[in-house]
Amino acid sequence: MIDEPDIRIFDTVAIVGVGLIGGSLGMAAKSRGLARRVIGIGRDERKLNRAVELGAIDSLCTSVEDGAASADLVIICTPVTLIAPTLRRMLDSLRQDVIVTDVGSTKCEVMEQAAAVLGSDRQFIGGHPMAGSEQAGVENAVANLFAGRTYVLTPSSSTSQESLDRLSRFVESMGAVVEIMDPRNHDRTVAIISHLPHVISAALLQQTGAARDDGANVDRLAAGSFRDLTRISDSPPEIWRDICLTNADQIVNAIAGFEHWIAEFKHALMECDESAILRFFEQARAVRAAGTWTRR
Amino acid sequence: MIDEPDIRIFDTVAIVGVGLIGGSLGMAAKSRGLARRVIGIGRDERKLNRAVELGAIDSLCTSVEDGAASADLVIICTPVTLIAPTLRRMLDSLRQDVIVTDVGSTKCEVMEQAAAVLGSDRQFIGGHPMAGSEQAGVENAVANLFAGRTYVLTPSSSTSQESLDRLSRFVESMGAVVEIMDPRNHDRTVAIISHLPHVISAALLQQTGAARDDGANVDRLAAGSFRDLTRISDSPPEIWRDICLTNADQIVNAIAGFEHWIAEFKHALMECDESAILRFFEQARAVRAAGTWTRR
Repeated sequence: MIDEPDIRIFDTVAIVGVGLIGGSLGMAAKSRGLARRVIGIGRDERKLNRAVELGAIDSLCTSVEDGAASADLVIICTPVTLIAPTLRRMLDSLRQDVIVTDVGSTKCEVMEQAAAVLGSDRQFIGGHPMAGSEQAGVENAVANLFAGRTYVLTPSSSTSQESLDRLSRFVESMGAVVEIMDPRNHDRTVAIISHLPHVISAALLQQTGAARDDGANVDRLAAGSFRDLTRISDSPPEIWRDICLTNADQIVNAIAGFEHWIAEFKHALMECDESAILRFFEQARAVRAAGTWTRR
Repeated sequence: MIDEPDIRIFDTVAIVGVGLIGGSLGMAAKSRGLARRVIGIGRDERKLNRAVELGAIDSLCTSVEDGAASADLVIICTPVTLIAPTLRRMLDSLRQDVIVTDVGSTKCEVMEQAAAVLGSDRQFIGGHPMAGSEQAGVENAVANLFAGRTYVLTPSSSTSQESLDRLSRFVESMGAVVEIMDPRNHDRTVAIISHLPHVISAALLQQTGAARDDGANVDRLAAGSFRDLTRISDSPPEIWRDICLTNADQIVNAIAGFEHWIAEFKHALMECDESAILRFFEQARAVRAAGTWTRR
């Protein structure tokens, strides 16, 4: 193997949890030569062997302590509730110069827990790639999952500029666009554009299930728009329970704001207020048209 | 041109409003030989000429009275609020043996208006193809738009079995699956699986717009799930105002039911009730998994 010192950003990257995101990170790092080697860490040796076969990792380790020991970058890709226990388990074996990051969907609680476990002795930078799919697992991992996507990094007060620059370079070299954010601002924003949509989709399905039980022929009449709106509810319920519990305040705020708009529309409809109804749909379309999301 | 008497179901089909749906109906009828000729009726001669070029209609007519006069099937593809005025305009020129249908998204009000205008002298059968797109206009019309889709027909008490069978055969010959429904049952069901999703999408966008105005970086963080949920809000606001106004009671009921589920989830989240939160997402996924919609 030929060394590529100009491209390489880390020597050894350890990925804890080699599923869709972890596997794609490994593939991206390996295929672009961003690390000399990538270790996959997990409990299920069979799944890790499959990750090796798929080219997501170079080697595997079923012990967090051992697997993280030689890494200069550790990426924790477990469900959010397992991030703190994972940090505790690797604490004593971590290199002094390591950078630790995660890919959790919420950041305030993770940052607090990381500070409590690691103190300021180790560099922890929160991470959240805005990429994913209802199709979980390393089988669905691809090297270009992050290409063109926003990748949020949330440094703490003890993060050095050097560490942040280095991790940013790693993320950008995978084709992602780095967005450095305050954890609270991140959590407030994802509550609206990611967590609220999951709650909405689930509530719509509950309502649909109740109508089905009541004899309405929902299955035959549901068309593309319904399927588009509810596709995200194929995601694992446990993951979404945990995301909600780690961002409860912001999600409650987002729901309350959403309830206000729904109630306002219902009122307009009960009053047959034609211009208020039209304005509601016009404004919604304008918000979407003004967004840059459709161009990505 | 060779006659195909075995396939042909109508002699002359008149389509009022040759956009995405009307144009696709014309293309389907022409390409499958279901009618000897298809007349397109509208106010904009340039658009109708384009429909001729695209093979959606054989000839055009800018007068509803004249265009409908020779038809044994008239399909009204105007916005819902224009169906009654269109019926009034063609009333005196309609053939005695004509079947008139529409493609409006709501059925109770349309059926009442049709009965008021046509009485029981003419056969009116409500129609609603569960197909469409945010991409309006005859430019987006395709002959197979209805293939594999549900096409609702709502007969009235004065509809003859012969007329219903004939229109059903026409619809099925386009590849659609006929669903014969009571108008009220139709309106209740589409309020949940079609109209409510549009209201939800618009409310989510309003909430997102407010957060954007408040400085949240919604554009950079919004990923696929958000775009999936809000895509339908590209639809013309006037169309959705009119659909809502013609199905207000059912939509208000659907919103109230949805509000109940959202409030229940918010309560569970405020209480950090882990099992209630998990159950919410589990039940939603189960409703989706039990549906037949994903198989179509």
